[in-house]
Amino acid sequence: MRGEILCIGDELISGRISDRNARYAAGRLWPLGLGLAGFSYLGDDPDEIVRELREALARCDWLVVSGGLGTTEDDLTAAAAARALGLPLVEHPQKVAELEALITSLGRPLTPENRRMALMPEGAEPLDPRSAGFAITVEGGKSLYFLPGVPPEFARIIERRVAPELGARFGSGHLASASIRLFGIGESEVGRRLAGLVNGVPGASLGYYPVFPEVILALSARAETPELAQERVATLETQCLERLEGLVVVRGAQTLEARVGELLKSAGLTLACAESCTGGLIGHRVTEVAGSSAYFLRGYVVYSNPAKQDLLGVTAATLTSHGAVSAQCAAEMATGARERAGADLALAVTGIAGPEGGSPDKPVGTVWFGLAQAGGVLTEHKRFAGDRSMVKLQAAENALDLLRRHLEGL
Amino acid sequence: MRGEILCIGDELISGRISDRNARYAAGRLWPLGLGLAGFSYLGDDPDEIVRELREALARCDWLVVSGGLGTTEDDLTAAAAARALGLPLVEHPQKVAELEALITSLGRPLTPENRRMALMPEGAEPLDPRSAGFAITVEGGKSLYFLPGVPPEFARIIERRVAPELGARFGSGHLASASIRLFGIGESEVGRRLAGLVNGVPGASLGYYPVFPEVILALSARAETPELAQERVATLETQCLERLEGLVVVRGAQTLEARVGELLKSAGLTLACAESCTGGLIGHRVTEVAGSSAYFLRGYVVYSNPAKQDLLGVTAATLTSHGAVSAQCAAEMATGARERAGADLALAVTGIAGPEGGSPDKPVGTVWFGLAQAGGVLTEHKRFAGDRSMVKLQAAENALDLLRRHLEGL
Repeated sequence: MRGEILCIGDELISGRISDRNARYAAGRLWPLGLGLAGFSYLGDDPDEIVRELREALARCDWLVVSGGLGTTEDDLTAAAAARALGLPLVEHPQKVAELEALITSLGRPLTPENRRMALMPEGAEPLDPRSAGFAITVEGGKSLYFLPGVPPEFARIIERRVAPELGARFGSGHLASASIRLFGIGESEVGRRLAGLVNGVPGASLGYYPVFPEVILALSARAETPELAQERVATLETQCLERLEGLVVVRGAQTLEARVGELLKSAGLTLACAESCTGGLIGHRVTEVAGSSAYFLRGYVVYSNPAKQDLLGVTAATLTSHGAVSAQCAAEMATGARERAGADLALAVTGIAGPEGGSPDKPVGTVWFGLAQAGGVLTEHKRFAGDRSMVKLQAAENALDLLRRHLEGL
Repeated sequence: MRGEILCIGDELISGRISDRNARYAAGRLWPLGLGLAGFSYLGDDPDEIVRELREALARCDWLVVSGGLGTTEDDLTAAAAARALGLPLVEHPQKVAELEALITSLGRPLTPENRRMALMPEGAEPLDPRSAGFAITVEGGKSLYFLPGVPPEFARIIERRVAPELGARFGSGHLASASIRLFGIGESEVGRRLAGLVNGVPGASLGYYPVFPEVILALSARAETPELAQERVATLETQCLERLEGLVVVRGAQTLEARVGELLKSAGLTLACAESCTGGLIGHRVTEVAGSSAYFLRGYVVYSNPAKQDLLGVTAATLTSHGAVSAQCAAEMATGARERAGADLALAVTGIAGPEGGSPDKPVGTVWFGLAQAGGVLTEHKRFAGDRSMVKLQAAENALDLLRRHLEGL
């Protein structure tokens, strides 16, 4: 089977507002295995709506339509639906009675505008006593749902009517899914490493998409029972993890900063940061996690050399003989931050984000990392590609991942 | 004329991630009067992509396609485009050369996977030396653009190639445009304030879209001569600025941090930051601007009370009697940062990002700002709505805007 979601409104296609409905419905309907093939957005143009409804109906078994069902002049969907289906547009008597009861209970009279919410193609049935919207089954048993575009109403009707009804009629089997966050690898290399894997696991699928600087790997498997689906996705995950060793920063839906926070909290350790080229981005990410004040004490953004010396005790000798972008400087920054903050751990980053400041010796993208702990200081060196903003994003990610690896004992 | 936007990727139609590209492109293309009729989302299914491309091509003069152009197995767009157009899929020699130059400059060899980025239908031309993507003009002068789905690359190519080229080919007359960045106002309120304005200026159009925490207003006007188009857009801009007094952070394409950097540079002033709830986000934004090391000296991320005292000299008395989220603390943070960094100006932020830490007196979202300068210290108070991340974004924006207002003498 096959279905689509169609959203209507000039406000959507002008870029003025962001649609949430299609994504919400997709998140609910995709796992049901209903063959969701896509969604479309159209403006408030009756001819376009009729054309798209006819074309979509020709290729689909089910269709969910959002928007254009209210009481105003630009609410055109019911009339377009009637035209597309070749049915008369009629007033649904039970819906009129429901509307009248609802509106008079609010102490207001039923207006002709209110009554527009009861208009639907002949043979359609209302979906919800409190909202506009109707469902109709047409030739070939195709199911069409027309929902109001107001997000809470849309979501309520998806939950109460559309997902259960379509699931019962068209759903096949059970779906299990998992996700993995990767860093230090491009999409192309992910593809190369995982080539062919999905063919070895029945009902499995693999997708990946970059959310720079990470690549997110989404795994899913379908089976006759929930247990078998789970087993299949676990098999696929194990195989992916083997082929991606050293590149996985987090398994599951958690962010890297949340994972680091969880590790710090459970070990009872505190953290300080010393940032040069990242400019505060590591502190920003660490503090995106609710409750991070339990382990994050402070950050030093030491953009200038005097700041590195005054705030962290980096020595003039280090700056003169090795430069600010060096293992020595990263180590002194980390050690200085750890001692001065009284933290258990301190993370330091110093590098050249560009576009200026590179040299043949230390090209743009060169970044040194330091991690100071009770036992001493670790340093690590990377060279990142990309513009200033991309170098910063990769440097912050690598710093947090260095800390994660340390906390996980890797 | 008529055009559509098509986005490709299982991650989009499964509801896993939210598309930003179609909306971005819509916000840029809608005001150009190109007849944008809608957008569609499809999964990684080659037959579906071919079908949709053929159908869309039959009813459109132009088409923008996002996604599925990388180097991996689920990047199917180039092959689908070739099939839909009935053209062979070929490797573009110039693109291969560009890719090779780019990748070898990073010290890596060109792999077969990398080379996939040079595949395109015969007759297509690459769009951007740093990204995948191509453009092709087909029978009837129809323009097709295939862009990578990675949002910053997509946006860059829309700005540099798609909007100017489609505007020149299909836009009627001459177009002038302008943009304004707003902060402290929601979309619906922007709509209310600007209602009817566009009807008073011939050939004018207005679009707005949120890039949280800002709302971007895109103005354009069309006329028979470039001068008249410019005059019209200037009239519209003046009227918008009147109705949006106090809410405009930047006019034009510049970011707020770039504007602040420009103002600091031209005044020859240096800056330090003292951040509590924003955790380093202000420093991160300031250092997104190339050359910011000329004016940004250092940042103090004082997440704990001891850090506020040790690093900035906030007094125990202030913390006891007023608390860390107070005008007094913000003022002491700013003054301490200015003195200790030896900077001309220092910006301080202290607030409650939530979800914990609020009280009836100081609810979540309460933020105090301080700006220390030679003449003393200014403080300002705001209460922001939204979750932890949204409070941080708004607090950083307001801090930078406080500095901008000061530097502009407002």
